[in-house]
Amino acid sequence: MAGVVVQSIDRVAMPVVDGLAHCGVATVHEAQGRTGLLAPPVRPIYPGARIAGNAVTISAPPGDNWMIHVAIEQLREGDILVLAPTSPCTDGYFGDLLATSAMARGCRGLVIDAGVRDVRDLQAMGFPVWSRAVHAQGTVKATLGSVNVPVVCAGALVRPGDVVIADDDGVCIVPHADAAAVLERAQAREANEESKRKRLAAGELGLDIYDMRGRLADMGLKYV
Amino acid sequence: MAGVVVQSIDRVAMPVVDGLAHCGVATVHEAQGRTGLLAPPVRPIYPGARIAGNAVTISAPPGDNWMIHVAIEQLREGDILVLAPTSPCTDGYFGDLLATSAMARGCRGLVIDAGVRDVRDLQAMGFPVWSRAVHAQGTVKATLGSVNVPVVCAGALVRPGDVVIADDDGVCIVPHADAAAVLERAQAREANEESKRKRLAAGELGLDIYDMRGRLADMGLKYV
Amino acid sequence: MAGVVVQSIDRVAMPVVDGLAHCGVATVHEAQGRTGLLAPPVRPIYPGARIAGNAVTISAPPGDNWMIHVAIEQLREGDILVLAPTSPCTDGYFGDLLATSAMARGCRGLVIDAGVRDVRDLQAMGFPVWSRAVHAQGTVKATLGSVNVPVVCAGALVRPGDVVIADDDGVCIVPHADAAAVLERAQAREANEESKRKRLAAGELGLDIYDMRGRLADMGLKYV
Amino acid sequence: MAGVVVQSIDRVAMPVVDGLAHCGVATVHEAQGRTGLLAPPVRPIYPGARIAGNAVTISAPPGDNWMIHVAIEQLREGDILVLAPTSPCTDGYFGDLLATSAMARGCRGLVIDAGVRDVRDLQAMGFPVWSRAVHAQGTVKATLGSVNVPVVCAGALVRPGDVVIADDDGVCIVPHADAAAVLERAQAREANEESKRKRLAAGELGLDIYDMRGRLADMGLKYV
Amino acid sequence: MAGVVVQSIDRVAMPVVDGLAHCGVATVHEAQGRTGLLAPPVRPIYPGARIAGNAVTISAPPGDNWMIHVAIEQLREGDILVLAPTSPCTDGYFGDLLATSAMARGCRGLVIDAGVRDVRDLQAMGFPVWSRAVHAQGTVKATLGSVNVPVVCAGALVRPGDVVIADDDGVCIVPHADAAAVLERAQAREANEESKRKRLAAGELGLDIYDMRGRLADMGLKYV
Amino acid sequence: MAGVVVQSIDRVAMPVVDGLAHCGVATVHEAQGRTGLLAPPVRPIYPGARIAGNAVTISAPPGDNWMIHVAIEQLREGDILVLAPTSPCTDGYFGDLLATSAMARGCRGLVIDAGVRDVRDLQAMGFPVWSRAVHAQGTVKATLGSVNVPVVCAGALVRPGDVVIADDDGVCIVPHADAAAVLERAQAREANEESKRKRLAAGELGLDIYDMRGRLADMGLKYV
Repeated sequence: MAGVVVQSIDRVAMPVVDGLAHCGVATVHEAQGRTGLLAPPVRPIYPGARIAGNAVTISAPPGDNWMIHVAIEQLREGDILVLAPTSPCTDGYFGDLLATSAMARGCRGLVIDAGVRDVRDLQAMGFPVWSRAVHAQGTVKATLGSVNVPVVCAGALVRPGDVVIADDDGVCIVPHADAAAVLERAQAREANEESKRKRLAAGELGLDIYDMRGRLADMGLKYV
Repeated sequence: MAGVVVQSIDRVAMPVVDGLAHCGVATVHEAQGRTGLLAPPVRPIYPGARIAGNAVTISAPPGDNWMIHVAIEQLREGDILVLAPTSPCTDGYFGDLLATSAMARGCRGLVIDAGVRDVRDLQAMGFPVWSRAVHAQGTVKATLGSVNVPVVCAGALVRPGDVVIADDDGVCIVPHADAAAVLERAQAREANEESKRKRLAAGELGLDIYDMRGRLADMGLKYV
Repeated sequence: MAGVVVQSIDRVAMPVVDGLAHCGVATVHEAQGRTGLLAPPVRPIYPGARIAGNAVTISAPPGDNWMIHVAIEQLREGDILVLAPTSPCTDGYFGDLLATSAMARGCRGLVIDAGVRDVRDLQAMGFPVWSRAVHAQGTVKATLGSVNVPVVCAGALVRPGDVVIADDDGVCIVPHADAAAVLERAQAREANEESKRKRLAAGELGLDIYDMRGRLADMGLKYV
Repeated sequence: MAGVVVQSIDRVAMPVVDGLAHCGVATVHEAQGRTGLLAPPVRPIYPGARIAGNAVTISAPPGDNWMIHVAIEQLREGDILVLAPTSPCTDGYFGDLLATSAMARGCRGLVIDAGVRDVRDLQAMGFPVWSRAVHAQGTVKATLGSVNVPVVCAGALVRPGDVVIADDDGVCIVPHADAAAVLERAQAREANEESKRKRLAAGELGLDIYDMRGRLADMGLKYV
Repeated sequence: MAGVVVQSIDRVAMPVVDGLAHCGVATVHEAQGRTGLLAPPVRPIYPGARIAGNAVTISAPPGDNWMIHVAIEQLREGDILVLAPTSPCTDGYFGDLLATSAMARGCRGLVIDAGVRDVRDLQAMGFPVWSRAVHAQGTVKATLGSVNVPVVCAGALVRPGDVVIADDDGVCIVPHADAAAVLERAQAREANEESKRKRLAAGELGLDIYDMRGRLADMGLKYV
Repeated sequence: MAGVVVQSIDRVAMPVVDGLAHCGVATVHEAQGRTGLLAPPVRPIYPGARIAGNAVTISAPPGDNWMIHVAIEQLREGDILVLAPTSPCTDGYFGDLLATSAMARGCRGLVIDAGVRDVRDLQAMGFPVWSRAVHAQGTVKATLGSVNVPVVCAGALVRPGDVVIADDDGVCIVPHADAAAVLERAQAREANEESKRKRLAAGELGLDIYDMRGRLADMGLKYV
């Protein structure tokens, strides 16, 4: 069923996307009921980046990066490439040349359940990547995959036009239809945390702030 | 057997603890006969920290961080939290709010055979963590564990009040009763290494400094 | 068959070695037909180093670093130590004292399919290491291995006098006899990439630059 | 978003399900364009079983098997339970008592991206399981999950009422809507393979049967 | 601190040991509060064995099986050898000759957080082994370890004279002092399970037998 | 440098090959100085087979099994196929049709550092396979590799015409030139082990048979 490029996808409005970036992965993930995270082996190639964008998805054969060239043509300002190989692979699908091309099309970064290379150049260019591996192993351009179809990437379902949030804690996917509502809940969560942070910094205990002592005693916790 | 909080533990005196921190993990581990190390998948979330402290231990169910709140009440100045899940888990048990609370109680850091999140905030706060994973996945507060009981954490036995030393090389546990003696041996070891370092830097060979040539020949080493 | 030290090895001339370092791992690997890479779990202990050198190889028993002392005597200016354990091992074979000694002999770095320790000191000294693990676990000096024999290190065959290139993308081995030719191809590749980079940065698509559209259509790619 | 039980799901007719079982995982996977496979770490706990059934899905917290009891009530003759934990977990969610209950409701087997126990009893009962681990570690019943919602299990998207095929090669998911068409293609594929098998057994080469020699030569294959 | 052989250890009486074997790993583990399990990568080399015995423990260097010879002299009828390497190792520490010797001393089996070899012979001899790996890689006899000291084996603390139970579900350790009490609880658990099994086989639901519906509703489970 | 098929390789005489099969992997590995083993994740797909043969090697791209068809034409009676992917891959490169073809050419089995499928059929046919994974994931035929070139397979160097020995303990490679000498040493080793086995079975200790007590005491072993 490979060999399809969907050219028209619905994107989430950039103010919502940028609001989600500001909240960050951990907060957004909580705000949507603890769903949408990629598995923890997918890590940033350098620390400190925090981005969000609309997903342009790629389903690619193992060791074959041809579809990235196809996907780059589909990119718009504010998009993030999300690549899932059709079987586990650590090859270096992506390097500085592809990053140059993607950046020229407005792409904010790459999330890939496989490998990348030229990581020093990627950091120098400021093109953030979350990947399973860093590996110089090259790929071929011999077999079709698809662009902008639903993929499962590192255990998370990603549909084109879903919002991708990525930072040092990992990567979270927010379904297109939920983005505005999740942003609202994430911002509420942030406001709430701020007041908690102050009380905790002053030495109050979570046991008291969250009123846990009674329930702990009911369940049989014993202090000895 | 879960559901116990031991409130009174014997701690090692801070000068001994701080002396062990100064020696670092590799030296302390050697000084106590090459024992006490956690397995290498437990890594610092950011480079450069070197700490030691008295262990406040937590045995926690998978995906449930309730006992961390209970443990924080037991913290004193100079303690380090050590969390071992009762079965393998990479969830993010700990983030910036818990770190704020732990710091307010004098805690120096966290060692956890599981995941953490908010790692950018933890680094900004200067709260060091050694963990098996970074994962934004949240946890629940539904099931009891225990605080200040012996735990096996990443392959090492840790009892409350043992000394935890952690740096870029990993984490080492010194049994409470051995701390002073191990410090003495670690400091002797450091002094001895200093003189070796100078001779090696001057180009002398370990083969000669440690007088290895005869034994190598006896065992049959052949130069060709 | 352990217990052999080969003292005389052919080295590649330093201008060729240094030229390969300048090209970097990803380019060199492509220039020799996508061969010679070590497996991706072997990673730099700190970012930013890029080196090349002639391989001085070590075959060592698990948990025994005796042969490193023997190998250091064989080092010359511009060499890189390459250690392969005879069975999988994450122990810390190497630390700051051995690095001091190796640097005094002109060694540029270490590649090891096992563990190292004292990583903070190694970074401060500017002695780069690519390893499978960071682990403070000490080793013994009880059993012979060999020096300057062919080894398989993290999936790559390494012969003494092969060129080792290592950077943030990993480690690549160039066979001794191919070094000059590979350098030539790598430099040609770099020149070619530079022109591509400019066109991509200007917004041209790889689909057009590499003339892929016809072949994609022939293979049945459908735009919908 | 946990805490939902969908009681009414569309099931695929049993003749189609049983036809897919007869074709087996490898053939069905090919017949639907090489999609739908679970990741290879999910393995049968004993060899020789080959089943298919309609998926009753479970999304469960780590270390908490409460929802299996809820799901068993939803089972009908010919169903297969599919459990995906919300974060990676190897605990033993399932043993002989739950299997007894599931069998009494007509369940044909379990696919679980986590652990199971009582594997000797499960084999004696003839209740096949495909799991990531065998682990006696018990679970709790403290937190809600969901039943019959879409889940990602070992990298594959599974919706309630999809067909699950499982044998010694692993597990494959066929989307509900595609089941009849995939069966037709799978059966055609089997017929075609039978004639190939005879020719190959007689010593004919795939190079000739599939007419590969010309294309290999065009791509530059050299015989030396 | 290696180099110690403790010759006199307290053993648990064989009727208790044999009673625990009969209950099996999963039941015993539950009966002692879900503690004592080894990590799931330690698996039986062949299916169907179920044993229990008193632990004779071995702490061994990586790739060095010398201490097994020392430990065999300490074996008595009904013992089980438990070997923990001092750092992770998959070498084949044990084969048919050592098994012949151990069996001659009354040993019932081996639990090892490392590798074994000659597995076909071991099965033919009826000497069961639970190991992390099967690997023909030989070991040396060059460095001391210890016998009958406490070890951490695959994440579990094992003291000499603890009871080891091992079957197809894995390995569980019962502390010496708790053995009789745990047996009693395990047998009670078995009796209780038997009646549950009958009701479940008859089609009753766990939801009703364990009276879960009310609590599920209280927590907010919704049927749709 | 892919795209080469070496048609003429030197094979080891079948009596030597068959003698090595009879000795088995563990003994042969010892007889050649503890070298030549593949890494332990490569396991037999079913127990009980023990084979040896001359290696016909395949270097294949990830997810592409085209070269197996090319290699089958090169097979002769008594050969074993050895496939190493050029980057890590678990796809199912090989199934019952290819096995039918290989058997028709006299092939004794397959060793592959990747995945296979149709494992039930392979067992029924009596075609043994040692693989890293069982995975139904199909492969393509789009990119060239090479046949009968040196490969590194699961950490072992394999040249065409080397002897491959495989049994339940794993896989061992004997270099072509050493085969006869290794067989002689392996047979001597077997004879020697037979007498040891009898003494050990009679209750004699390895400590005495191998005269270890003095050396253990010299190294400081203490009995307490």
